[in-house]
Amino acid sequence: MGEKVKLFGSYASPFSSRVELALKLKGVPFENIEEDLANKSALLVQYNPVHKKIPVLLHGGRPVIESLIILEYIDETWDGNHAILPKDPFERALARFWVKFIDDKVLGALWMSCWSEGEKQKNFMEQSKEYLELLENELKGKKFFGGDTIGIVDIAATFIALWAIMVSRSCSISLINEEKHPILCNWIEEFLSSEVVKKSLPEKEKLFAYFHAKKEVIFATKAPAY
Amino acid sequence: MGEKVKLFGSYASPFSSRVELALKLKGVPFENIEEDLANKSALLVQYNPVHKKIPVLLHGGRPVIESLIILEYIDETWDGNHAILPKDPFERALARFWVKFIDDKVLGALWMSCWSEGEKQKNFMEQSKEYLELLENELKGKKFFGGDTIGIVDIAATFIALWAIMVSRSCSISLINEEKHPILCNWIEEFLSSEVVKKSLPEKEKLFAYFHAKKEVIFATKAPAY
Repeated sequence: MGEKVKLFGSYASPFSSRVELALKLKGVPFENIEEDLANKSALLVQYNPVHKKIPVLLHGGRPVIESLIILEYIDETWDGNHAILPKDPFERALARFWVKFIDDKVLGALWMSCWSEGEKQKNFMEQSKEYLELLENELKGKKFFGGDTIGIVDIAATFIALWAIMVSRSCSISLINEEKHPILCNWIEEFLSSEVVKKSLPEKEKLFAYFHAKKEVIFATKAPAY
Repeated sequence: MGEKVKLFGSYASPFSSRVELALKLKGVPFENIEEDLANKSALLVQYNPVHKKIPVLLHGGRPVIESLIILEYIDETWDGNHAILPKDPFERALARFWVKFIDDKVLGALWMSCWSEGEKQKNFMEQSKEYLELLENELKGKKFFGGDTIGIVDIAATFIALWAIMVSRSCSISLINEEKHPILCNWIEEFLSSEVVKKSLPEKEKLFAYFHAKKEVIFATKAPAY
């Protein structure tokens, strides 16, 4: 399986960034193929005919789909020095639990807190508060969700460390702050200052500008998708 | 880790049945603890404080949560003769893709086709049609989604084999039929006639009566949860 690895992704997508970060943690060389999401390539549709979405990892000519599934594939395929999931089955289950919690609950609540108004926004912000407290508690006594090193929960939480901060700033609301979430804020600092993370994520200001420019459009559609 | 295995579940839940089936496929003895979902036990809330939901698998005094995560835990913990996931990373990724597709797309569309009316129902039935065609195609040339033996996709699809059939019957609509889905119907027959499946699932008629009795309540709440 020495064939070149390709990642069909998008600059502003936290889901592409998850895969990029995992490949870099493992030291797997790959080609990054930037998709225009308004005009998806025939190859993307061919490789992901069911959802027609990024990210798609192409390895040995075969497509792997869905960011979290790709992360498990990467961990199983390239052993390397950096384990993305713990080895112990119970610890693996715990990590998968938090990953699912982030995807099913946290991301939607944070995102919708930014892109809704009035009573609806108040409810999403309440939800976000509750979820962030759970994550704050989960991080107690640890540098990363994965312990001393970046693991699958940290990778899944990339959205929180960068996107949630940038998007809430562009919408002038405060979701995560030093006073209420000191441990989470410390994690964000540690995570974003890691060399491999820096190399995998889009530039803060460029991302801020991207969402700031999109603000009117996203509000107008009333059906945001991140 | 020789401590007794306990499953906190509910008779009518397809998610509990997934875990029960996986444990029986592996030959793991366990104690089934029936939860009253209208009055959850203090133990359930203690073991799953975030979601307070079944199923919870207790092993060595430690809780594992979320049915699909429990299935992976079972496969990693008890090797046994029956593999729930394939060994090859690419095949594993494919299986996880279909499992996620079933949970994120198929279940909701089938369920809501039964519990909605008018235009809304029409849309859910259209979605169901599209999703079932994809599953029909995925099953081509195979006895089970897992190949010759029952795998994680089959276990995840338990809802389709039994619940979707019973619930749609109780609501007098047709979702899956021999004419449009011959391969899927053949799979349902093979799956439900397997001895271990028979021992893991609730009785057809009892389940039918359960949902038939609940019909008015579910319609009234307008917020069904399966």
